[in-house]
Amino acid sequence: MGGSPLFKTIAIVGVGLIGGSLARAARERGLVSSVIGLGRGEQNLRRALELGVIDVLEKDLERGIRKADLVVLATPVCTLPELLLKIAPFRKPESFVTDVGSVKAPILREADQIFQAPSPFVGGHPIAGTEHSGVEASFASLFEQRRCILTPGASTDPRALESVRRLWEAVGSEVVTMDAERHDQIMGFISHLPHMVAYGLVHSVRHAEEKGDDLSSFSAGGFGDFTRIASSHPEMWRDICLMNGDAILEAMGAFEKSFREIRQLILEKDGQGLEKVFRQSRQTRAKLLKEQTSSEPAPIEDRK
Amino acid sequence: MGGSPLFKTIAIVGVGLIGGSLARAARERGLVSSVIGLGRGEQNLRRALELGVIDVLEKDLERGIRKADLVVLATPVCTLPELLLKIAPFRKPESFVTDVGSVKAPILREADQIFQAPSPFVGGHPIAGTEHSGVEASFASLFEQRRCILTPGASTDPRALESVRRLWEAVGSEVVTMDAERHDQIMGFISHLPHMVAYGLVHSVRHAEEKGDDLSSFSAGGFGDFTRIASSHPEMWRDICLMNGDAILEAMGAFEKSFREIRQLILEKDGQGLEKVFRQSRQTRAKLLKEQTSSEPAPIEDRK
Repeated sequence: MGGSPLFKTIAIVGVGLIGGSLARAARERGLVSSVIGLGRGEQNLRRALELGVIDVLEKDLERGIRKADLVVLATPVCTLPELLLKIAPFRKPESFVTDVGSVKAPILREADQIFQAPSPFVGGHPIAGTEHSGVEASFASLFEQRRCILTPGASTDPRALESVRRLWEAVGSEVVTMDAERHDQIMGFISHLPHMVAYGLVHSVRHAEEKGDDLSSFSAGGFGDFTRIASSHPEMWRDICLMNGDAILEAMGAFEKSFREIRQLILEKDGQGLEKVFRQSRQTRAKLLKEQTSSEPAPIEDRK
Repeated sequence: MGGSPLFKTIAIVGVGLIGGSLARAARERGLVSSVIGLGRGEQNLRRALELGVIDVLEKDLERGIRKADLVVLATPVCTLPELLLKIAPFRKPESFVTDVGSVKAPILREADQIFQAPSPFVGGHPIAGTEHSGVEASFASLFEQRRCILTPGASTDPRALESVRRLWEAVGSEVVTMDAERHDQIMGFISHLPHMVAYGLVHSVRHAEEKGDDLSSFSAGGFGDFTRIASSHPEMWRDICLMNGDAILEAMGAFEKSFREIRQLILEKDGQGLEKVFRQSRQTRAKLLKEQTSSEPAPIEDRK
């Protein structure tokens, strides 16, 4: 692949699926001379070293951060504000910092408090993932033809944004830049809400089964799709709910309103009204698929 | 395959995906000497004849029904009660009648009014389908290793139940027998509710976009699964909502309760409570997948 290195040394804190895949992609494509792996689990870092995901294992956070030209924070999303505070004193003067968390505004707020302008911090959220987690599941092509949303703050150094953007583009992503609040609002609707709905559905089936109904053995026509979504990592979704609660609650309210509209149409036996809503849904999907195939070279996460 | 014929002549009213696939499967497996295709659209029946799906095209409903040892009603579910009434006078004394509609109680109620005991009618619902419809999309293996639910009435002739059961087993299905009301309640929960939820979700995104938000282009992480479900046939789902309204409303109420539980946990920032619900959902899925792989030789509809 052999591009010229964008960074001499990248430190990745949290070498799991996302951190590990970014390490692999950056190394395979020659975007970095050395990747330092950092994080709490030494055994995990050893495995990353064995697998050739990282070049160097560093148990000491301070020592690892001091060497890095770019620091990528890839630990669970709820740990990021505190981690940012922890690493800030050790970073090289000319280095940049980014993250891969799926909620952005609380992290940006923390960064705004920690760093003076021009801030070295750029928020990042690669829209990519698999049902598996951990460094064993990492692979270099995870980000290819996926979107990566970057959320610079008002005081972010333009060179930091540019560097981080080039990294994501070089590993194959289409980069979109937006405000952190807007990111959280969009994700609250388009990703977090569907998960809450799926959890609600599986939860209601569980409640019904507790009353003695044997429902799940008849699972068919749609229910399976929901249980797939609703089997995502419980801790991760707990954290997302805690960190993006306001936007999620707003989206849940909007959903409830639409759901009640449909309930009302059923109650009133309004066949015409129901058909109209169902027909519009089909159009929304058609529009969605068309937009995805025309504006993007390849499918994004939900169509894998 | 060459089993001995179960029926001399089967009349299929409505030769679409389900009716056409049943015709193909029965003919390929030698379960019938002749399949008569009936239905409103002559052009569709001609196509079925060309494709070798049926043996005989019969434009006249009365004439077709008079010849049949088994009548299979495979027209849209809302047409079934009336169709049952229409064909009843013409059927052979020793013939049986079944259907493939996805709502059962209203059809059984109609059958109970039309036929004196022992009734020739058995309700049927093969849990099978694809995203496509019409005779062009039909194929003989559609019912293999899928469940087919049969709902006899209180006055159904046991020989009718036995004959229809043997047909579905012979085309490869696992037959489950239950009460029509129970069928509608289970499907209301496990199949109809997920569709309402998916429609509600897509509908709420549409509402948000009407207010100017560009959400769907960021579709990721779950939303796509929902739009797939929500692009099912608008007319079919309208009819299901009209025919199984009570059970669907009950299931929707149960879902709303569970959904509000989650909303409340988010509102209260109850991380422990959220994690518990999410963890239980994962267990429900694990249980579901285990049940399906242990009790059934192959995946049912939702896992195709």
